[in-house]
Amino acid sequence: MFSNAIASRPCLLYQDQESGPMLKVGFLRASVSNAQTHHLLFSLRRINLATAIGNRSKLVRSAMGSHSTASSQSPKLLFRQLFEKESSTYTYLLADVSHPDKPAVLIDPVDKTVDRDLSVVKELGLKLIYAMNTHVHADHITGSGLIKSKLPEVKSVISKASGAKADVLIEHGNKIYFGDLFLETRATPGHTSGCVTYVTGDGPDQPQPKMAFTGDAVLIRGCGRTDFQSGSSEQLYKSVHSQIFSLPKDTCIYPAHDYKGFTVSTVGEEMLYNARLTKDEDTFRGIMANLNLAYPKMIDVAVPANLVCGFQDLIPKNC
Amino acid sequence: MFSNAIASRPCLLYQDQESGPMLKVGFLRASVSNAQTHHLLFSLRRINLATAIGNRSKLVRSAMGSHSTASSQSPKLLFRQLFEKESSTYTYLLADVSHPDKPAVLIDPVDKTVDRDLSVVKELGLKLIYAMNTHVHADHITGSGLIKSKLPEVKSVISKASGAKADVLIEHGNKIYFGDLFLETRATPGHTSGCVTYVTGDGPDQPQPKMAFTGDAVLIRGCGRTDFQSGSSEQLYKSVHSQIFSLPKDTCIYPAHDYKGFTVSTVGEEMLYNARLTKDEDTFRGIMANLNLAYPKMIDVAVPANLVCGFQDLIPKNC
Repeated sequence: MFSNAIASRPCLLYQDQESGPMLKVGFLRASVSNAQTHHLLFSLRRINLATAIGNRSKLVRSAMGSHSTASSQSPKLLFRQLFEKESSTYTYLLADVSHPDKPAVLIDPVDKTVDRDLSVVKELGLKLIYAMNTHVHADHITGSGLIKSKLPEVKSVISKASGAKADVLIEHGNKIYFGDLFLETRATPGHTSGCVTYVTGDGPDQPQPKMAFTGDAVLIRGCGRTDFQSGSSEQLYKSVHSQIFSLPKDTCIYPAHDYKGFTVSTVGEEMLYNARLTKDEDTFRGIMANLNLAYPKMIDVAVPANLVCGFQDLIPKNC
Repeated sequence: MFSNAIASRPCLLYQDQESGPMLKVGFLRASVSNAQTHHLLFSLRRINLATAIGNRSKLVRSAMGSHSTASSQSPKLLFRQLFEKESSTYTYLLADVSHPDKPAVLIDPVDKTVDRDLSVVKELGLKLIYAMNTHVHADHITGSGLIKSKLPEVKSVISKASGAKADVLIEHGNKIYFGDLFLETRATPGHTSGCVTYVTGDGPDQPQPKMAFTGDAVLIRGCGRTDFQSGSSEQLYKSVHSQIFSLPKDTCIYPAHDYKGFTVSTVGEEMLYNARLTKDEDTFRGIMANLNLAYPKMIDVAVPANLVCGFQDLIPKNC
């Protein structure tokens, strides 16, 4: 009976000069009779304000929502984008602020900015539960080891396909819950064989539009290189087109890096303007084979450390 | 008859286990009868998809809305935060994508990233109308002159109190419209005598929570120095407490700079955690008097250029 897929979009009752009373839901509009609008407005008048205050229902926005940024379009989500300047890495903080514990995850933390990240987590009253990685990075050391040394209850997360150690080894289709919110894992190999993209979930109060944390699979107007760590341009092309460009076009793309000062893009934008991934597969493979990039200066330090969650002494621990 | 103030908020029809059919509008909920939900769903089924394409009504969200970021909580607003790494400056792009022209403004553009910014403006199909500055910067050259040399129809904006030349000299209380959206000017002197903060407006479809572009008046956990360009720690303290900390606590603070990788904060957060502005006025003045900062390396180039909108040859033009 209920059509949430349509009706959960923004709804507007208005008077059109030509068509009379109109109901607008998302991008779509419908004529409505005066009787229907009376029914609807009568219902609105019956709203009990008391239910909006102090109600712990899943539908009521938490008071901590006042700390959420303008980036969130879920009443439950607190979202922060954080930047590490040396490696141009973005770290993402997400939390369910409607949950009593305010459980939070960090995606792609960097060792050098762990103190900053944990300071924000503390100030916002969040409980960090997962330190997640999109892949085994070659240009910086993940912060997940250092985070665990400071907060042992935090669990590190990386894909099973990466071959790295972690508390939680995830696979394609796995969901990572923090409170009522969750991220779905999509395998997007190609930059490395273990790359994943984390995508916010479907359902009431999950962020709209969706958010995709693409790691190095899709960068804004570009993509990660494919010439080391079992990279494959053929695989990357297939991953992006099947797992990321198949998402709704308004899905926000939050990459692991940006070198030009962009903070966000969308699937629709990248499908139109990505300098590499808009090409046909053969052209893409040719581009990737001829980048002639320098050997990554951090790779010999970063990859071994990241295979054990960022413990820099390289002694395998429970990470 | 129509209650846009309520009905323009997100609307959800759902089934509550205890209460039966419910209509949720914004944070408010109402019971609805089965007959009412049938009426509503019947109307939804009658939606004519053709009307969603090419309609230029102000009430219809543009298809370009699909390109808006997750940062927007107004159905009309497209918002992008852009970073210039050398001077750690944030430039902000805002546009009304529900308007046929998609009019846009850039706040604090930097000369070195003008090409990037205008590329995004073009790709998103926006019409840039204002290149706005929060103040006469001392650490980089504004992009407003370069933008005007490429797009002469764009108008530069700065405060009258800054003493700089511009097409539009704004004062406290002035509103800058782009489509149906607007920014209100708040005089926030102290870092320089001409500093302003631009705050998104009140009213239906204006962004919620509000957004405040604070320039150097409030930085995340800090503030701009007060030891040159007619700066005054006493004035800055009064400006921030009367004009910024008086905004709703969930107002998002978007500063002109960040040096630690933060992208956004809120009024509530800064009132709790700002390392300087949470102190009493005497302590604040003492902190600001003893920063012992180096002379800004760009000031002798940047300030004269910025007083004429960034025309680097320093020949006053109509800017």
